[in-house]
Amino acid sequence: MTSIKPLGDRVVVQPKPAEEKTESGLYIPDSAKEKPQEGTVVATGPGRVEDGTRIEMTVEEGDDVLYGKYAGTEVTLDGDEYLIMRESDIFGVVEG
Amino acid sequence: MTSIKPLGDRVVVQPKPAEEKTESGLYIPDSAKEKPQEGTVVATGPGRVEDGTRIEMTVEEGDDVLYGKYAGTEVTLDGDEYLIMRESDIFGVVEG
Amino acid sequence: MTSIKPLGDRVVVQPKPAEEKTESGLYIPDSAKEKPQEGTVVATGPGRVEDGTRIEMTVEEGDDVLYGKYAGTEVTLDGDEYLIMRESDIFGVVEG
Amino acid sequence: MTSIKPLGDRVVVQPKPAEEKTESGLYIPDSAKEKPQEGTVVATGPGRVEDGTRIEMTVEEGDDVLYGKYAGTEVTLDGDEYLIMRESDIFGVVEG
Amino acid sequence: MTSIKPLGDRVVVQPKPAEEKTESGLYIPDSAKEKPQEGTVVATGPGRVEDGTRIEMTVEEGDDVLYGKYAGTEVTLDGDEYLIMRESDIFGVVEG
Amino acid sequence: MTSIKPLGDRVVVQPKPAEEKTESGLYIPDSAKEKPQEGTVVATGPGRVEDGTRIEMTVEEGDDVLYGKYAGTEVTLDGDEYLIMRESDIFGVVEG
Amino acid sequence: MTSIKPLGDRVVVQPKPAEEKTESGLYIPDSAKEKPQEGTVVATGPGRVEDGTRIEMTVEEGDDVLYGKYAGTEVTLDGDEYLIMRESDIFGVVEG
Repeated sequence: MTSIKPLGDRVVVQPKPAEEKTESGLYIPDSAKEKPQEGTVVATGPGRVEDGTRIEMTVEEGDDVLYGKYAGTEVTLDGDEYLIMRESDIFGVVEG
Repeated sequence: MTSIKPLGDRVVVQPKPAEEKTESGLYIPDSAKEKPQEGTVVATGPGRVEDGTRIEMTVEEGDDVLYGKYAGTEVTLDGDEYLIMRESDIFGVVEG
Repeated sequence: MTSIKPLGDRVVVQPKPAEEKTESGLYIPDSAKEKPQEGTVVATGPGRVEDGTRIEMTVEEGDDVLYGKYAGTEVTLDGDEYLIMRESDIFGVVEG
Repeated sequence: MTSIKPLGDRVVVQPKPAEEKTESGLYIPDSAKEKPQEGTVVATGPGRVEDGTRIEMTVEEGDDVLYGKYAGTEVTLDGDEYLIMRESDIFGVVEG
Repeated sequence: MTSIKPLGDRVVVQPKPAEEKTESGLYIPDSAKEKPQEGTVVATGPGRVEDGTRIEMTVEEGDDVLYGKYAGTEVTLDGDEYLIMRESDIFGVVEG
Repeated sequence: MTSIKPLGDRVVVQPKPAEEKTESGLYIPDSAKEKPQEGTVVATGPGRVEDGTRIEMTVEEGDDVLYGKYAGTEVTLDGDEYLIMRESDIFGVVEG
Repeated sequence: MTSIKPLGDRVVVQPKPAEEKTESGLYIPDSAKEKPQEGTVVATGPGRVEDGTRIEMTVEEGDDVLYGKYAGTEVTLDGDEYLIMRESDIFGVVEG
């Protein structure tokens, strides 16, 4: 099976499908503000190097994360769509 | 119950509803300048790392804070609207 | 009474009313250059952190300061208008 | 045979041909997002110098890498097309 | 008498009147290039802080300095016009 | 004979003439991507200074180098055309 | 006699007149590329301060230097035209 080992502070995220319609099928824009997307981390890089020191990653495999709608680059692996983004593009980890 | 653990120097803020009308219902623009919004901090990240040292956060849960009208990204948790923003987007803490 | 504790190197300034008219009521543009505004510092933050060290603030409460016409964000406290700006937006302290 | 010794953190990549058509010959745009390209590293620089320390390269010769569609500069060596790009333009290494 | 204590690496300069006309009253543009203005330093800040160290100022009160036509912000003190600018806006000191 | 001693991390390069036509005289654009130019290093600066340390140059006199089409500034010495560019404008050294 | 003591890493250069015509009086554009100008250094600053250390200047009085066509600011001293520019605007020193 194919996988990607991200470089630096990049992570591979498997996005959850966006729910943009209500059950009755209407599109409801709640606000003009950008809403974050949700996904699951499937691979993380070793962290970026700053002034000779590697900064450890905060997120890990299996984390449910929120990120901006325009974060990352799409990549297809064995027919599934993933996103490669920098950890700094991740807003936070969803818990509970 | 769902919650978000912000990364780096991000905070989750529950905004207070803006009062843009007078009691009689008129919109009164006092000035062309951007006015800050007010909200309550409900979660804080661990702080960002600079040159290998983590900078501690200044705001904490329960703080009433002021922030710019365009700060942060909206996120919905269990039906409530929150904002995820960087601590540097916060102007100050309201007291008294 | 409500007050604001600014974060980082921000200060709260109570602006003095601009005098843009002569005594006889005429507007006299002396120059196309931006003229600084004058105000009084009413609260200061603890200073910003650079490379793990907090840089002490130079201005203090009660200082009369000059700042650019477009500096800061307006905020209303108990009916009075204030500006929250960074110390670096302040040009100098007026003395004598 | 001609070869290129890249400077700093640059790498020479031999790109794989993009498959933009289905077997029946139709172009299928899956998404408006930029898709990474895939190639094989054929030469790496010694790494860039930051604050007097050389940062070691992460990728090595023979690695299959993903990079942005607009990354790098084309160069022709003995009739074959290559790309010279910075290591930071590489998203990750494909494994398996 | 009113005076200004500049913050950081700012200086207060009293500009000399520009001579843009010849004695016979004609305007003579020598070149399309910006010409520096000349003025006298009347107050200097303590210098800016970089990495916890204060960088000493180079110019001092009484120095005749050259600066760009668009440098600084005009301020009126007791009826006289001054400019507040950063020391880095000053090209050099006129001697002799 | 006139020569140039470049400052900092600049190098003087004698460009090789571009071959943009086939032997039969047709212009063949292979790709919309920028193609690097090739030239020979004839002089190098001492290297730039970063944080008080001089970074040694990587290329040396006689090296065949690749650089971007828009890199450098043309200079004429004793009737010959050269380019002065920064070492960071050089992609790599051609060998073999 | 009037002279200028440049601040930081600035230098005062006396430009040589550009020769843009052939002997028979025709203007010959060799290339669309910017050509450097030549001049003689008549004064140098003490060097700029980086992280508390003064970086020594490389050029000195009397050096013939090349610089970009748009580098520096014109200044007139005792009727002669000079340019004040940063040392980093100088490409190299002409020798021989």
